[in-house]
Amino acid sequence: MRNIKLVLEYDGTNFAGSQLQANGRTVQGELERAIAELTGLSSGAHCRVQLAGRTDSGVHAEGQVANFKTDSNHSTEIFRRGLNALLPVDLVVTIAEEVSKDFHARFSATEREYRYEILNRRSRSPLSRHYVHWVKTPLDVNNMAEAGKVLVGRHDFASFAGAGMGVPDTESEGKPGTVRELRRLEWRSGKGSLIEFWVAANAFLPHMVRNIVGTLLEVGAGKINLREFEEIFAACDRRRAGPTAPPSGLYLVSVKY
Amino acid sequence: MRNIKLVLEYDGTNFAGSQLQANGRTVQGELERAIAELTGLSSGAHCRVQLAGRTDSGVHAEGQVANFKTDSNHSTEIFRRGLNALLPVDLVVTIAEEVSKDFHARFSATEREYRYEILNRRSRSPLSRHYVHWVKTPLDVNNMAEAGKVLVGRHDFASFAGAGMGVPDTESEGKPGTVRELRRLEWRSGKGSLIEFWVAANAFLPHMVRNIVGTLLEVGAGKINLREFEEIFAACDRRRAGPTAPPSGLYLVSVKY
Repeated sequence: MRNIKLVLEYDGTNFAGSQLQANGRTVQGELERAIAELTGLSSGAHCRVQLAGRTDSGVHAEGQVANFKTDSNHSTEIFRRGLNALLPVDLVVTIAEEVSKDFHARFSATEREYRYEILNRRSRSPLSRHYVHWVKTPLDVNNMAEAGKVLVGRHDFASFAGAGMGVPDTESEGKPGTVRELRRLEWRSGKGSLIEFWVAANAFLPHMVRNIVGTLLEVGAGKINLREFEEIFAACDRRRAGPTAPPSGLYLVSVKY
Repeated sequence: MRNIKLVLEYDGTNFAGSQLQANGRTVQGELERAIAELTGLSSGAHCRVQLAGRTDSGVHAEGQVANFKTDSNHSTEIFRRGLNALLPVDLVVTIAEEVSKDFHARFSATEREYRYEILNRRSRSPLSRHYVHWVKTPLDVNNMAEAGKVLVGRHDFASFAGAGMGVPDTESEGKPGTVRELRRLEWRSGKGSLIEFWVAANAFLPHMVRNIVGTLLEVGAGKINLREFEEIFAACDRRRAGPTAPPSGLYLVSVKY
């Protein structure tokens, strides 16, 4: 059996999320259907795909990673072009390559990077309505950046851990938990009124980026101050933190191995 | 009567274009409907809107300009917020202001700026499928930039003039024609594999930007050389030039008065 790694870009707007569901159009579902068709699997048979990061409905990806095992002799270039001909317009394979048998898109990953895009202006934006989170209230980005600094490092992120913890990412010690190592956190000014929040960690808890952004937005809007943000983080209690920011602004940028 | 100027952003994907049509959803149609509703015009009455630039179906705008006459006493802030509550998700008023009675969005304009976005990479892009023109062939941007230089200045652009010349923009001399003053032309590297073509002129002929881009793309792909491009331009014959580039990459950026 060969092991094929794929890098994926998708527009999450019309997906029910990345992971296979009984009902609902998913990235994994579309990918497994296309692979089965390309490799000539008989009807009903399927090829299991592993994904590096689990993204919710509406969340986008520029560099999601997947892998699957196959007996097919197709070259990786045929896999890329063949799958792209079979995949829908909102999902594409940008890179296909053969990897060692023990490569696992999720468990071999050592770092994930996400970007959250906030459009901070008076009027909503037709052109980016599915691709940013529009915030009308003027934001103090310096305060948000200052608050965000306390998150960098190895910490318990329970205050920003969403529901659906049934299958959490495994810790390096091999047991599930809410401790993660947040390696980089950066705010960048984008085009026009765009504010970009870049964050990288060994792994993320469900909704972790969106919960952090939702709470930092309360700092930016002046609803909570730096000391209150630190207390929320230290409390390790999801009920203390701010709302989950909407999915439209979130992008899985890249995964490292 | 007051004269109100609006700056508009829209996603052209689901519009049949900017100008009113008997059948088909248009920017002007949606705007006139919303203004009639906000200003309480009786059913059947309508408020005529003038637009600075005519954009085709699929062409976007970040800074289209419109104006209309009204007896309404609404403040300009009420116009902006009220219209935005009534307009569909793909059209928004970013600025509303009162202007002098003789201001005409189209005929008072002294300069229009457009941007054409080209994504030059191997795989199609789900995230920007409605917002760029995807070109798979590697492009030589230096050659395209060199060829583009000959267009700058006051010239006859007949080689790049599309059909639908029935109502051309009036020349400064007051008579229709195919002479335009192209004031700036610039290629910029965008995010990732994005190439941006920025162009400003006193006015543009129908399809002029898309026909120029379509022909410059042939230079970039090595199908025609610099001398051939100059001959095409000098011929003043649309049949000599390249194809019309698709609308999805084109943005009306701003209009000057």
